[in-house]
Amino acid sequence: MVATVPHPLSDLTVEETNHARDVVLQLHPGAVIEFRLIFLLEPPKEQMKAFLHLEHSGNVTSSTPRPQRLAQARYDVIGGSQAVEYHESVIDLTTWQRISHEVVGAESHAGLAIYEFKNVVECVQSSPLFQQKLQNIELPKGFELVIEPWPYGGPDAADGNTRYFQALCFARDTSSGNPDSNFYAHPIPLIPVMDYRKGEIVRIDEPATGGKGDALSGRSHKKAVIDHCHAAEYVPELLPKGLRKDVKPLTVQQPEGPSFSVSDANLIQWQKWSMRVTFNPREGAVLHDIRYDGRDVFYRLSISDMTVPYADPRAPYHRKQAFDFGDGGLGHACNNLTLGCDCLGVIKYFDGVIINMNGEAQVTKNVICLHEQDNGINWKHTNWRTGRAVVTRRRELVVQFIITLANYEYIFAFKFDQAAGIIIEARATGVVSVVNIDEGKTAPWGNVVSSGALAQNHQHIFCARIDPAIDGHSNTLVQEESLPLSIDARTNPKGNAYEVRQTPITTSVGLDLAPFNNRTFKVQNLAKKNPVSGKPVGYKITAPPTQLLLADPKSTQAQRALFAQHHLWVTKFKDDELYAGGRHTLLSRREIGGVADAAARNDDVLDSDLVVWSVFGLTHNPRVEDWPVMPGEILQVLLTPCDFFTENPSLDVPSNKDIGSRQTEGCCPHKDAKQGEKSRL
Amino acid sequence: MVATVPHPLSDLTVEETNHARDVVLQLHPGAVIEFRLIFLLEPPKEQMKAFLHLEHSGNVTSSTPRPQRLAQARYDVIGGSQAVEYHESVIDLTTWQRISHEVVGAESHAGLAIYEFKNVVECVQSSPLFQQKLQNIELPKGFELVIEPWPYGGPDAADGNTRYFQALCFARDTSSGNPDSNFYAHPIPLIPVMDYRKGEIVRIDEPATGGKGDALSGRSHKKAVIDHCHAAEYVPELLPKGLRKDVKPLTVQQPEGPSFSVSDANLIQWQKWSMRVTFNPREGAVLHDIRYDGRDVFYRLSISDMTVPYADPRAPYHRKQAFDFGDGGLGHACNNLTLGCDCLGVIKYFDGVIINMNGEAQVTKNVICLHEQDNGINWKHTNWRTGRAVVTRRRELVVQFIITLANYEYIFAFKFDQAAGIIIEARATGVVSVVNIDEGKTAPWGNVVSSGALAQNHQHIFCARIDPAIDGHSNTLVQEESLPLSIDARTNPKGNAYEVRQTPITTSVGLDLAPFNNRTFKVQNLAKKNPVSGKPVGYKITAPPTQLLLADPKSTQAQRALFAQHHLWVTKFKDDELYAGGRHTLLSRREIGGVADAAARNDDVLDSDLVVWSVFGLTHNPRVEDWPVMPGEILQVLLTPCDFFTENPSLDVPSNKDIGSRQTEGCCPHKDAKQGEKSRL
Repeated sequence: MVATVPHPLSDLTVEETNHARDVVLQLHPGAVIEFRLIFLLEPPKEQMKAFLHLEHSGNVTSSTPRPQRLAQARYDVIGGSQAVEYHESVIDLTTWQRISHEVVGAESHAGLAIYEFKNVVECVQSSPLFQQKLQNIELPKGFELVIEPWPYGGPDAADGNTRYFQALCFARDTSSGNPDSNFYAHPIPLIPVMDYRKGEIVRIDEPATGGKGDALSGRSHKKAVIDHCHAAEYVPELLPKGLRKDVKPLTVQQPEGPSFSVSDANLIQWQKWSMRVTFNPREGAVLHDIRYDGRDVFYRLSISDMTVPYADPRAPYHRKQAFDFGDGGLGHACNNLTLGCDCLGVIKYFDGVIINMNGEAQVTKNVICLHEQDNGINWKHTNWRTGRAVVTRRRELVVQFIITLANYEYIFAFKFDQAAGIIIEARATGVVSVVNIDEGKTAPWGNVVSSGALAQNHQHIFCARIDPAIDGHSNTLVQEESLPLSIDARTNPKGNAYEVRQTPITTSVGLDLAPFNNRTFKVQNLAKKNPVSGKPVGYKITAPPTQLLLADPKSTQAQRALFAQHHLWVTKFKDDELYAGGRHTLLSRREIGGVADAAARNDDVLDSDLVVWSVFGLTHNPRVEDWPVMPGEILQVLLTPCDFFTENPSLDVPSNKDIGSRQTEGCCPHKDAKQGEKSRL
Repeated sequence: MVATVPHPLSDLTVEETNHARDVVLQLHPGAVIEFRLIFLLEPPKEQMKAFLHLEHSGNVTSSTPRPQRLAQARYDVIGGSQAVEYHESVIDLTTWQRISHEVVGAESHAGLAIYEFKNVVECVQSSPLFQQKLQNIELPKGFELVIEPWPYGGPDAADGNTRYFQALCFARDTSSGNPDSNFYAHPIPLIPVMDYRKGEIVRIDEPATGGKGDALSGRSHKKAVIDHCHAAEYVPELLPKGLRKDVKPLTVQQPEGPSFSVSDANLIQWQKWSMRVTFNPREGAVLHDIRYDGRDVFYRLSISDMTVPYADPRAPYHRKQAFDFGDGGLGHACNNLTLGCDCLGVIKYFDGVIINMNGEAQVTKNVICLHEQDNGINWKHTNWRTGRAVVTRRRELVVQFIITLANYEYIFAFKFDQAAGIIIEARATGVVSVVNIDEGKTAPWGNVVSSGALAQNHQHIFCARIDPAIDGHSNTLVQEESLPLSIDARTNPKGNAYEVRQTPITTSVGLDLAPFNNRTFKVQNLAKKNPVSGKPVGYKITAPPTQLLLADPKSTQAQRALFAQHHLWVTKFKDDELYAGGRHTLLSRREIGGVADAAARNDDVLDSDLVVWSVFGLTHNPRVEDWPVMPGEILQVLLTPCDFFTENPSLDVPSNKDIGSRQTEGCCPHKDAKQGEKSRL
């Protein structure tokens, strides 16, 4: 039996992950090792380019040289005195050698591990300090305390480099016996702070519960601090009015199966597209080597990071700022998706490999799903002379993953269409974060979405990393604007002309959108001209022109998320430069090694291997309708071919009539259709 | 049998339409009448408010007073000397009386009727002047001329008030014998101009065919003017490479039927929504009396108008500017939709009533379709403590209509969701408009999308008319911005706070978007406070912040489309003030009676019956991929409840698992999946 050699762009297997662990353990005899992450270190691009060239020309054999198979391992080494060092190592899985090793300095923190959160909960519960503070409040009968661990956010000056965590507190009504009764409806104004290394709650912050006109600090709440809060259930069996009964089933049938295929573990092929998908605990689903009809389009697409800063000025809420990717724990936050719930039709699921504290590999099921969907009409034309209509549907291939971070969820999808376009989509849903507010008060920093529950204003700022390969790796970012021209007797006699101005970007930089100039950004390969138009082949990046980070640029919130200061960054490609917010965001004071630093190198990016970082977001001043679980808000970045092809690439999509559709007279009114009945005389 | 009295908000029937015609004919004995439009004149809002109040309280009986049933009739009265007067009359269908009558002045033109276009084609074909010009060009063997009538656009000063039409010319390759061979690929640089009243081609414009650096006028083309053009077919049987074969069927099944009902001819009820739909030849599908759970939300939603100005400065292209709604002919341009092509699932179609030149009513089948669709996840939350995930799908109800205007099509949809949101969507598709360009040349005003075919840069600027009724008709438009705050020891010590600033709009005005301020507009009912948040109940209007009209403000293009100078207008409601670009756009020189004039009244719009006009668009510098039929570009305006409800209105949507979904291993590679096979050793 011939051994299966994994493709260089495939995740570490359980075995490989455990091998990496074993190597680490052997290097630290006698020490206690607590593992955080082990996952594939993707091969250097130069090596991959050579391999992919052979692969796509059909010349890969068993003797083809392959990039080293490498694992990156992140772990704490705990010495005899309980001193903790955080290590990042790279393990060669062929030679079983550690080939690089870094002990990360104390000013940077390892991303959080899910077991740390569990420890925070236990530590709070057993803290005498916390118990003492609880004396000041009184919970209604049948309510029990719920501890929700959170990252500490950007430390204050006095905090030093201590590894702090904080926790928000809520109370759950146990009277229903239902463990999913929504505790977020009952926020308690106590925020215990844990020194993780000491294993101790060192402080209990007591945020103000006042509103407009009240001081930013100071206690104003009653002892019965949640007596004015109301239940806000979302699990169906607890809804006081039950469920609506008039949603009839709508199912997607694919009697001949899906149009996609998955082979070689992670190679997806669909409608002239091919790509590989991997899963890692820092970015979730990542797409590689994306080609259309055999042509290079993108080398790698990922969600690089995101930040969620909160805008309540009252301490300690200035530290409410999550980096949902960079802060760690993403691998464990990815939902194990369920058939028929998270998507419809014929679904292929991909599993991931994550580790526990001991570094033991575990399969996490169904963390990525793949399916097709119909999204209305793609193109249509009717010849009015003949009456002949040709209409094609817009079929999409969706690679989706969903993360739950405490109260909130994000649904991320990469959608491919038949006209060679890609959509990167983020949907924000879940429970908006609320804090206690005194009865009858309102506040300028948020909205009272439920009695006693203030949903604080916040932003979600995402960054997608787009590593293009537009017909190869020598690419240029070109800004294009459509600009007004005044009436001019010679060039614009009637005033209807406008100018389309192209500006190639020569140096790595952060750029902003300008929708009223129709500013768009294209990645072009200047050496390849479209034979029809004579223009360089390219792809356009269309991101929503959303508000950037609002925090004062001098604030810690802003300093930690320099990536959120521009809509689009272009940098020169560098291996392992993947994270917009920097390698270590947990407890950071400033973005270090993120996209702002990369851009600041002032690299020449003309005709070079470049990376584009697209920043987009949502200023979320919550509505009452966002409570208790918010309807998804949708943001999309479009990657669209621009003179890359010589015609509409979806021209050959069949315009077959759907055999499953049927017509209805829709004539049977609902029983409660009073108005319809009455007005018919 | 009790006679069925039509609901006041229902289209004229065939009989009513013919009655209106008969009244008109009787009023003009001996004259020749050419009819253009006959359709419902909607009742005054004050009368409708009274009627709807009774209707929704269940108090409409056969003796309830109803608004007059009125038809508006537009027609030409052709006198003995062939002098033509254009009349607009209102006919009372109960009394069979004309109750108002206007002979429109010669400076305004009636919208075009489809029979006029047919006359243009015939007139060009038989024109000696045109035949003479044809001597200067030579068509390849087997090619025949195609005449494509167009509106004349905004007249030049010397054109006076003449009713001109123009036509673009193309040539069709007849060698395939297929009448749908794409003639647009072979543009001919001749633009005949017809004086419609004279019935004569008075001029043949000969646009330049040069490119960059060439003069704006002057002939440079060869006699064999389309010899360098290439075929660009889109009908499947003519595609040289045939159709792709790997799109497997995806069908939508609704085994229990749709969740909507249609009763009383046009009353739609779905998921707590109710509304009436009408069809008219000026706006297509219009929605009325939109309520959620019995509460007033919008009185009327429509696409009011749109303009498509072209940016090629060479005469006569400065006159290429369509108002696809206002110019007329929309009723005949609406596609007769086809089962299984224009939407999937269980579909209800609505017919329309249009007229011919003689004013005879004709049913046009399936001009509006109604169906449900799934649009991914609506909301989801997983309790990480218990692992319990609750996830609901986003079901949408879609009211759709599609128009074909010569080369181009637009797909318009009103989409309703279960969280009480509405999306107004426009998709642009069809064949981009091209003109002849000399071989090997390129031009700054467009893109060569096919040899010899220059697709000119242009814009599509839409205006949706939103007549709100947020818990009644006393509404206020409020601008909301999220603005940065500097660090301030007292109010913003850590610099994370931002200000949310509300500004009620007091006077009718045109306003612009400012996405970097997160500027949003809410329509609120200041008298009704949300019991949870204490804020006024409202709906937010979120339109894409797109580029406005680029043409020089002094240009005719800009003067004709004043509505396109702002993103959002608010005006005081006035009956029959429906059209953003004015009543008469065909051959207009300036927008008259449009939204700019309405806003200029400086009406008080605080706490009043107001109308919001949302302007959004697409600056379309064509891609080669837009040829020959462009993949749909999608624009959406969102209407979202903001503190209108006391919780997420879709909380009660069941999270039933879809029974039709199934899992695949997706393991069977396509036969051509070489790379996958090879890399598996």
